[in-house]
Amino acid sequence: MKKLRLFTPGPTMVPEDVMLEMARPMEHHRTGFYRDMYKEVHELLQYLFQTQASCPIFTGSGTSAMEGVIVGCCPPGHKALVVQNGKFSERWTKVCQTFGIDHTVLELDWGFGAKADHIRAAMDADEKIDTIIVVHSETSTTALSDVESIAKLSRERDALLLVDGITAVGAIPVKMDEWGVDTYVTGSQKALMLPPGLGLAAVNDRAWSRIDSGTMPTLYNDLKAYRKSLETWDAPYTPALTLVRGLLHVLRGIKERSLEAIWAETSMLAEGTRAAAEAMGLKVFATDTVDSVTAILMPESVDEGALRKTMRSKFGFQIAGGQGSLKGKIIRFSHMGYVDAFDTIGAIAALEMALTQQGYGMRIGAGVSAATAIFADKMK
Amino acid sequence: MKKLRLFTPGPTMVPEDVMLEMARPMEHHRTGFYRDMYKEVHELLQYLFQTQASCPIFTGSGTSAMEGVIVGCCPPGHKALVVQNGKFSERWTKVCQTFGIDHTVLELDWGFGAKADHIRAAMDADEKIDTIIVVHSETSTTALSDVESIAKLSRERDALLLVDGITAVGAIPVKMDEWGVDTYVTGSQKALMLPPGLGLAAVNDRAWSRIDSGTMPTLYNDLKAYRKSLETWDAPYTPALTLVRGLLHVLRGIKERSLEAIWAETSMLAEGTRAAAEAMGLKVFATDTVDSVTAILMPESVDEGALRKTMRSKFGFQIAGGQGSLKGKIIRFSHMGYVDAFDTIGAIAALEMALTQQGYGMRIGAGVSAATAIFADKMK
Repeated sequence: MKKLRLFTPGPTMVPEDVMLEMARPMEHHRTGFYRDMYKEVHELLQYLFQTQASCPIFTGSGTSAMEGVIVGCCPPGHKALVVQNGKFSERWTKVCQTFGIDHTVLELDWGFGAKADHIRAAMDADEKIDTIIVVHSETSTTALSDVESIAKLSRERDALLLVDGITAVGAIPVKMDEWGVDTYVTGSQKALMLPPGLGLAAVNDRAWSRIDSGTMPTLYNDLKAYRKSLETWDAPYTPALTLVRGLLHVLRGIKERSLEAIWAETSMLAEGTRAAAEAMGLKVFATDTVDSVTAILMPESVDEGALRKTMRSKFGFQIAGGQGSLKGKIIRFSHMGYVDAFDTIGAIAALEMALTQQGYGMRIGAGVSAATAIFADKMK
Repeated sequence: MKKLRLFTPGPTMVPEDVMLEMARPMEHHRTGFYRDMYKEVHELLQYLFQTQASCPIFTGSGTSAMEGVIVGCCPPGHKALVVQNGKFSERWTKVCQTFGIDHTVLELDWGFGAKADHIRAAMDADEKIDTIIVVHSETSTTALSDVESIAKLSRERDALLLVDGITAVGAIPVKMDEWGVDTYVTGSQKALMLPPGLGLAAVNDRAWSRIDSGTMPTLYNDLKAYRKSLETWDAPYTPALTLVRGLLHVLRGIKERSLEAIWAETSMLAEGTRAAAEAMGLKVFATDTVDSVTAILMPESVDEGALRKTMRSKFGFQIAGGQGSLKGKIIRFSHMGYVDAFDTIGAIAALEMALTQQGYGMRIGAGVSAATAIFADKMK
């Protein structure tokens, strides 16, 4: 009966009523039941992505959907620019390498987000680039890219913009059509507060034209097959329909509450966590910080692995460590989905307690006070 | 509160306690929790496939795992023989075409299963063939292939044998190591009585050697990444862990009951259904009938679509129709997973009632009597 609170940036906590919704008796997918459900889910996904584009649902992780988008949008004759500023953007470079996609890598220091100026310079240097691949929220470094201004540039240059929104969509402002983004991708286990197993994409007409213009060696993640099945609200292969059922439930809740309210709460949780870190004498890692996940640098005296272990086994808080070169150096807290101010204050208290147990010198209560002050002000 | 009984060959019915098991609070996957769970699941998957081979779990449908296996095992320099005897084997031909895999197609009439003689002749005619792709149970036609003798042949010829066991594994005898099959694949939503979302594979050392020998344009379904993550009981991309949790629960139950007992029950259900069809004056479709699914030919006077609609909306039984050229001509009943003799007798009664309502002439009770006689004899 011990409580476990997931503060990892995916999987995130799943609301109890969503779990029970998914536990309802099994249905078949080649039926009116699935078509009606998908129709409603699709309308709500368009709200989520803020788009009129079509929204295929992949049975897979976010990686499956992102692979489908990159491969589909980069047939021979096109050249991609991958902005590489963390572990996930490295994966998109690997997709380009694996499928023999002509591409160039724009490398940024970890903790920095992509800006239009970076991309303008890269495109000026190589006129063949007609596709931009950017991670909106680099989960591994918690860096935010300026998608709005990059989208503006991509329109000026008539390039396609493919955005990995895996820890952005449903957490921070995403306005696909208003900004002019061509494809967005997310996964079920982040701000959508579902178990992992669905990759969600939004693909606009510009992207579909590109996809239709070529042929690539891909079948399971082939967007062409998804497009065809979308015409009849079907899926090319058996969909993970319990998760789609949960998705409908979650999306209805998001629409009811409004994206703006969710974006504001996520932002508040991040602001409170950053203030708490500062009050505890700690530093936030990223320069261009995103609001969906916060990374805090650990002092050299702290054993990060032991700290996370204490937080999980003793206090019931599962947080994330660093990845790649950040392993052992940072801890990360998610602000996505089914988590509120009071959960976050609890997590900060657990961090204070775990740090103090390792002999880290700080005034107990400094972090929770700082966060509570922020939340109290915003929740008036 | 109306009961719906799924008699479709996937998704099949999910036991209530498995649904509740999957509704338990969310966990994170980069943890001892997942590693311990996967270790036990892996041991039980080896029992399920009757193998010592390693068993990667794909977040995807059965198609994702089968794509991964075919692409990995057919790098340049190798040639595949695809035995094509239904809709699913056609999909494996499409995988070969899509990825530019050198292959030849051996076409059989629908309703027939592959036999060693067919394959021997094809290999005699083309010495380059060193990989055989066979569907054990062609769900679309309910035809059974003779995998045991094909495996013997594949060993004689030093060819790799890749088997689609999607409606075979956990339903009918599958003895991977004893027979000498190199890869088997199944999906979660068939005999494993789980919701869709997992593709399960077993890959032996001969297959891994082949996979290691080449490079193919694949990332999300790349078995090399799965092999690496298996070393630490991890997954290359976020796994669908609620489904893996359900899988553990199901596999424990299967082991406790024994595969032999399950194979015998599945076989009994099929025998009873075939006897019922005959007693009702109907014909079973396939020549080489499999025991996991039964296809029954509809008389010309019967409107198959209307019949299935009546069975679902009036009586609460969801059965499957035909696919491709069999559309409108057959109906299919699953015998996999969470279904027993009494459910099956109910389904036959519903079929009798729906047929009679369409004016089909038969003695009411003929089908259920025939099935009950078979079941009574076997369940003594």
